[in-house]
Amino acid sequence: MNQIEDVFPSRKDHSFWMTDAIHLAKKAYMEGEIPVGAVVVHHNKIIGRGYNQRERLKDPTAHAEILAITAAAGTLEDWRLTDCTLYVTKEPCSMCAGAIINSRLHQLIFGAYDEKKGCCGSLYQLCGDRRLESKTAVKGGVEEEKCLALLQEFFQAKRNPK
Amino acid sequence: MNQIEDVFPSRKDHSFWMTDAIHLAKKAYMEGEIPVGAVVVHHNKIIGRGYNQRERLKDPTAHAEILAITAAAGTLEDWRLTDCTLYVTKEPCSMCAGAIINSRLHQLIFGAYDEKKGCCGSLYQLCGDRRLESKTAVKGGVEEEKCLALLQEFFQAKRNPK
Repeated sequence: MNQIEDVFPSRKDHSFWMTDAIHLAKKAYMEGEIPVGAVVVHHNKIIGRGYNQRERLKDPTAHAEILAITAAAGTLEDWRLTDCTLYVTKEPCSMCAGAIINSRLHQLIFGAYDEKKGCCGSLYQLCGDRRLESKTAVKGGVEEEKCLALLQEFFQAKRNPK
Repeated sequence: MNQIEDVFPSRKDHSFWMTDAIHLAKKAYMEGEIPVGAVVVHHNKIIGRGYNQRERLKDPTAHAEILAITAAAGTLEDWRLTDCTLYVTKEPCSMCAGAIINSRLHQLIFGAYDEKKGCCGSLYQLCGDRRLESKTAVKGGVEEEKCLALLQEFFQAKRNPK
């Protein structure tokens, strides 16, 4: 099993950073995008932010995680995010799970599970797959209710437009 | 099984487009990157090109497929690549397989198999997984020898630098 080992213990707990990711998810919501937000944290500092912009950018790869990872790598000027933790409001899809593996992130902390398409525990568990040489530790369900409520509200509003 | 059905039959066969992808892989090689190249074809026209630029861009998401998919979506001004075929010289990793799923590509044609990390047949078969609502048809081994030779030459030169 992938045990969570915090490399950088801090008084700021996972909920603290997840709140930043939720803030970004709300930004996505306001722009009519599926509300998912993500931050990459390195030494108790956010070094990359992203929220889903698939529709606005007309780019199928513009998920919150991809944007946050690319931003973080830009900050560090290194594609390796070995000492970093990614916080994201929803369980990553296969693409984002792959990006987490490729960037060698130390930890992935997510909010709502995605039982239909999640690839970090639900449908597959790609992160931490030793065959892929992934050592990323995974923890889901952090601030789950808030993250899920945002998604449910978005899809409900889409089904029943005012 | 995912049968290959060419939506747009043409005299130009898969090897023709793969040759373009190989050309891009060589460009990656010349820049010191793992030599992988990709093109997205729509109605017998290349609408997106990419080659691995992970080191140069210092971006773990800058794989050939991701760059080609983003470029193609930009050309069509639509994140849906429903009628498109992606040609790539190496079997996609989990990230790129996920991007192929998310962009709803019609077909994936790749050259060399990646037995260690490939997620389109070797380690996993993510593309075409109906649970992920993926209908992408997959065909591997097109111009396999040329694609593989390029990769082998690259890694051999890395192991034994002049």
